[in-house]
Amino acid sequence: MADFRVIEVKQSVFADNDRKADELRGRLKREGTFLLNLMSSPGSGKTTTLLRTIEALAGELSIAVMEADIDSDVDARTIAGAGVRSIQLHTGGMCHLDAYMTEQGLDALRAEDPTPVDLAILENVGNLVCPAEFDTGASANAMILSVPEGDDKPLKYPLMFSVCDVVLINKIDALPIFDTFSMDRVRENIACRNPAAQVIPICAKTGEGIDVWAEWLRERVATWKSGA
Amino acid sequence: MADFRVIEVKQSVFADNDRKADELRGRLKREGTFLLNLMSSPGSGKTTTLLRTIEALAGELSIAVMEADIDSDVDARTIAGAGVRSIQLHTGGMCHLDAYMTEQGLDALRAEDPTPVDLAILENVGNLVCPAEFDTGASANAMILSVPEGDDKPLKYPLMFSVCDVVLINKIDALPIFDTFSMDRVRENIACRNPAAQVIPICAKTGEGIDVWAEWLRERVATWKSGA
Repeated sequence: MADFRVIEVKQSVFADNDRKADELRGRLKREGTFLLNLMSSPGSGKTTTLLRTIEALAGELSIAVMEADIDSDVDARTIAGAGVRSIQLHTGGMCHLDAYMTEQGLDALRAEDPTPVDLAILENVGNLVCPAEFDTGASANAMILSVPEGDDKPLKYPLMFSVCDVVLINKIDALPIFDTFSMDRVRENIACRNPAAQVIPICAKTGEGIDVWAEWLRERVATWKSGA
Repeated sequence: MADFRVIEVKQSVFADNDRKADELRGRLKREGTFLLNLMSSPGSGKTTTLLRTIEALAGELSIAVMEADIDSDVDARTIAGAGVRSIQLHTGGMCHLDAYMTEQGLDALRAEDPTPVDLAILENVGNLVCPAEFDTGASANAMILSVPEGDDKPLKYPLMFSVCDVVLINKIDALPIFDTFSMDRVRENIACRNPAAQVIPICAKTGEGIDVWAEWLRERVATWKSGA
């Protein structure tokens, strides 16, 4: 027998994060807060989509936003102008958020105003790989795939598409220029990874499709809050 | 059957990647092989740019390509059709390549044909965060930022822009649709992170600007091989 213990650091970190994520989800459920984890590649339109989502739902739901970034406050400044509670999370070079980091963000929002919101949105770090590996404690995972990125991304970043409840296909106004992108093929590729994922084409710039996305979110928040 | 090999690369557990990278760079220098590490977000056009680069330089340089992907052989299949030596590296879920993984790829290429190539290109995993943290042993780092991603990316992913010798601004044919993208502003933002970085606007789809990029690479390869 070896005279030392071998600790699988990665394994234990993952296992511990899963426990923390479940604990956080339980707390959010009790407080009636639906937490949406929004993921995507850099530049696929997370912040613009968030602005449209706030416009569509702010009249009926109380909303708070956590903007995660490695560096810079560009997005938090934009969101702060939209009239909802917002906070910037700097990850210090980290490529993803885990449940512990998410809890720190929620605690910081609560320190400013202790009233729980109906909808908290976490804008994750722009990355199709690492964020998919960490449960943030969210009630649902959403991702944005933009048309210019190509319809083959579900084949190349399988885990991201597997963990998402909904995939927004953004920048559909660019379809005439990116004419190799096929909406049928992207739906097939997503279904291949995750048959349960909802696919919603949108254009955050023009607002097209945002009503369908807002309705999806509205229903999910209502179900979460009703405890069903 | 596929006409390229798939290598399951394993990340080294040792924390001496920098030493390994320097060792690999020394070996490549002795062999007269220039190694280009090509990085970008998912879907910014790495593979199409690679095809154009091969078209522009294959007549004068011997070229080999290592396609890194978490999963799928989509890109290796495309490159295999371009008539250069190519190999698929599967990272097994890893979000980046390090010098050990790169060496495994180079060794696998050499096992097929022991003649050193003039130019080896590593297409890294689509990710603006993690690949920037690991020296692969490359002679130069290049990255592609595509117009639809936005001109603020150097502010949000600072390390990536800091480590690159050249930034290709791709999909410039989409500038009329993505009219908030300013070429002046992106140059300023890149200079902010890395005043030495060369910025080259291209359109891999139409071939625009590829001559400037090919000339940059041609000069770098020649300098490397001359030992200067």
